Amino acid sequence: MNITVWNEFVHEQTEEHIKAVYPTGIHGAIADFLKKESGVTVRTATLDMPEHGLTDEVLENTDVLIWWGHCAHSKVEDEIVEKVKTRVLKGMGLIVLHSGHHSKVFKSLMGTTCNLLWRDDDRERIWCIEPNHPIAKGVPAQFELPNEEMYGERFDIPQPDEVIFLGWFKGGEVFRSGCTFKRGLGKIFYFQPGHETFPIYYNEIIQRIITNAAHWAKPNYYAEKLECPNPPPLEK
Amino acid sequence: MNITVWNEFVHEQTEEHIKAVYPTGIHGAIADFLKKESGVTVRTATLDMPEHGLTDEVLENTDVLIWWGHCAHSKVEDEIVEKVKTRVLKGMGLIVLHSGHHSKVFKSLMGTTCNLLWRDDDRERIWCIEPNHPIAKGVPAQFELPNEEMYGERFDIPQPDEVIFLGWFKGGEVFRSGCTFKRGLGKIFYFQPGHETFPIYYNEIIQRIITNAAHWAKPNYYAEKLECPNPPPLEK
Amino acid sequence: MNITVWNEFVHEQTEEHIKAVYPTGIHGAIADFLKKESGVTVRTATLDMPEHGLTDEVLENTDVLIWWGHCAHSKVEDEIVEKVKTRVLKGMGLIVLHSGHHSKVFKSLMGTTCNLLWRDDDRERIWCIEPNHPIAKGVPAQFELPNEEMYGERFDIPQPDEVIFLGWFKGGEVFRSGCTFKRGLGKIFYFQPGHETFPIYYNEIIQRIITNAAHWAKPNYYAEKLECPNPPPLEK
Amino acid sequence: MNITVWNEFVHEQTEEHIKAVYPTGIHGAIADFLKKESGVTVRTATLDMPEHGLTDEVLENTDVLIWWGHCAHSKVEDEIVEKVKTRVLKGMGLIVLHSGHHSKVFKSLMGTTCNLLWRDDDRERIWCIEPNHPIAKGVPAQFELPNEEMYGERFDIPQPDEVIFLGWFKGGEVFRSGCTFKRGLGKIFYFQPGHETFPIYYNEIIQRIITNAAHWAKPNYYAEKLECPNPPPLEK
Repeated sequence: MNITVWNEFVHEQTEEHIKAVYPTGIHGAIADFLKKESGVTVRTATLDMPEHGLTDEVLENTDVLIWWGHCAHSKVEDEIVEKVKTRVLKGMGLIVLHSGHHSKVFKSLMGTTCNLLWRDDDRERIWCIEPNHPIAKGVPAQFELPNEEMYGERFDIPQPDEVIFLGWFKGGEVFRSGCTFKRGLGKIFYFQPGHETFPIYYNEIIQRIITNAAHWAKPNYYAEKLECPNPPPLEK
Repeated sequence: MNITVWNEFVHEQTEEHIKAVYPTGIHGAIADFLKKESGVTVRTATLDMPEHGLTDEVLENTDVLIWWGHCAHSKVEDEIVEKVKTRVLKGMGLIVLHSGHHSKVFKSLMGTTCNLLWRDDDRERIWCIEPNHPIAKGVPAQFELPNEEMYGERFDIPQPDEVIFLGWFKGGEVFRSGCTFKRGLGKIFYFQPGHETFPIYYNEIIQRIITNAAHWAKPNYYAEKLECPNPPPLEK
Repeated sequence: MNITVWNEFVHEQTEEHIKAVYPTGIHGAIADFLKKESGVTVRTATLDMPEHGLTDEVLENTDVLIWWGHCAHSKVEDEIVEKVKTRVLKGMGLIVLHSGHHSKVFKSLMGTTCNLLWRDDDRERIWCIEPNHPIAKGVPAQFELPNEEMYGERFDIPQPDEVIFLGWFKGGEVFRSGCTFKRGLGKIFYFQPGHETFPIYYNEIIQRIITNAAHWAKPNYYAEKLECPNPPPLEK
Repeated sequence: MNITVWNEFVHEQTEEHIKAVYPTGIHGAIADFLKKESGVTVRTATLDMPEHGLTDEVLENTDVLIWWGHCAHSKVEDEIVEKVKTRVLKGMGLIVLHSGHHSKVFKSLMGTTCNLLWRDDDRERIWCIEPNHPIAKGVPAQFELPNEEMYGERFDIPQPDEVIFLGWFKGGEVFRSGCTFKRGLGKIFYFQPGHETFPIYYNEIIQRIITNAAHWAKPNYYAEKLECPNPPPLEK
């Protein structure tokens, strides 16, 4: 399985306290734990690379794409967004993390605003409501994130195929924190935790969930073309 | 309830045999039966009108929009598509008919290609699998369309919230012929029958289904803005 | 529309502090606000009546049944449970309240244990995540129940057709507090609030939700028989 | 993975023409192809064995149970049904084949009648509408069963979590031929083909689908008990 971890990689270069948390970038931290899996090849790509690091060659060799973005969504070229979307519809898995809810890629696949309530620095408790789902393998019934940005309902998404995690926030909000969607042949997992100022991606349970999700999202096969065929009748 | 019936209105002006079926356009035929409902105001709009007849004033006074398009999808201005989509996300109901599956509006709300198999002139039998759904009120368990274009699976759509009708085609194909989706606050119904060369929209069962769908899709209320609020905590 | 409100009516007769909250029984309190709706006939039935008040005649004249039970689930006769279930499968709406999650009727329709976490006397905040659903008409984005028993995930139910309300509890739990299911031709709404020691059913928002749910659950028609037909082919 | 193939094993002993198709029973034919999988242990069990071959010891050592029954549903002891159901809710996978739609086990897990239309000896074409689902791995877009009993809609089941296959029948009917459901921690796959008079279970595509389904249904873990805990608050 080939995984590409994409990160806009802005906060970690412009803000010292975030760089302190993720010295090699959020993509670096995520790639580090994924690399420990056997049979997995991990690559990273960032906004400032040519074609944002998502060339045709990279996309055609990516089985699962992980996406983190926040302040630079609008700087992602529409042409690249379209290529990523097409690759998902042909079968590539996609894991969208935290503020990636407002990325062009995710909004385009959902067809909605993906708006939500938000507030800096709350405390979250995540409940697993589908304990036998492959993404939940080895995950406890509930666990705490002592510091996390609040993301609250109403989350403006289509009804998910599955809601695997529900988030409870100290400030009084709830959230569908882990949701799956199929779009075309591609499997998509949205996972809410991961604010850039907190060391969320070093949490072993979070790492387990993202790793599980990558295995789950890996396609069986890819559509060669996206087409609308005009076949003769099978029956006379 | 204010219903706007939108039609690209091309075939009926350029092809005599289609004009013979729908002398006042497909929009005219649909408006005619909807006007018989009490409490309903029906307006029509077509591609060749300024802003395709979908001005801000029209959209803001439309509770349910019905959409028929086929050969001129690409001629619908992106700006109008965006306005229609925004209005749906704020609550307006949307009924997409037949070849509207490939309209910019529908594809943008679905996030997928909406591709399918197709073939001119087959015979369809439509089965109702949710007989107690408001859209199925008064609809028989199955009915036949002696002439209809074949639309077959795989239909590249997100998993519908509800599949109400399944289509059987003589040539050997099946189709999810009537599906509901929620996007934002808007309710969407996709309904497959309605090829321009056949008098489908004069069929009383088809009329009943579209009328039911309009009542079902009417919103309770509209979102004033599409926003992403940053509220203070409710709990201390 | 004919509504029957069923209550086991035990706590209100055996415990003074509960009788103080619901002097005419929980069924009395619920019937009182439903009776204010025009076009609605409301009847009540309780465990201690012959056939628990759910005779064939009553069931055949009930469009929507509301169910409250807690300590006496096991005293409900299996024969009556079977009749109620059959009536739901034929089309009758069913609203299951609070501890009714463990009623024979609900468990039999769900096919699961309907287990959950629980704890007396917490505080709940209910979030509406489907604001355009008929059951949510006129309901605010969130509201508080200052005293309510905690019901927490994992709630062992089949994936609901729709999750309309999510509950946040002060003690750290979350819950799918308002869920819809279709079973046979019947529409079912499970709604979590309503512990017997708190005046939940006098809350106007709760009353609005239950009233909305009754209108939503009313069937279009009833199946005459539950059968497995052996028809001749439609096509030769 | 331990698979147990359960078959009522009546037709194959009482009717010569069925014995000719399945000389070792339907269970024998299914076990034969499953045994070819590496890492899989296959056992069979039949109605006439003590406890129908489903002792506690067998069930506790079964990860996926496959069920075929038809004329003897009523002869399956309620106590065994309850044990099978409990094991599913704790996590065991369940694959219900063909006329197993009316088995006590399946009806009890669905909560509905599971009724449908039926007719002997039709021709079926099966369409795959979720080509990237694990159960569809290696399965063509459509394939034909030259002889199969017709099972037609409306199939009285709860809305499936996923519909993977749709069936087209020559006689004019359609069917949700492959559906998944989660109940408790258990994954369930209902698959329609498999009438006893036709050699369906020797078809390699059918074998592929059942084998895929067994891998898909295997649980990550089992619940030790089915309980309704009363925990202290996590938050003060």
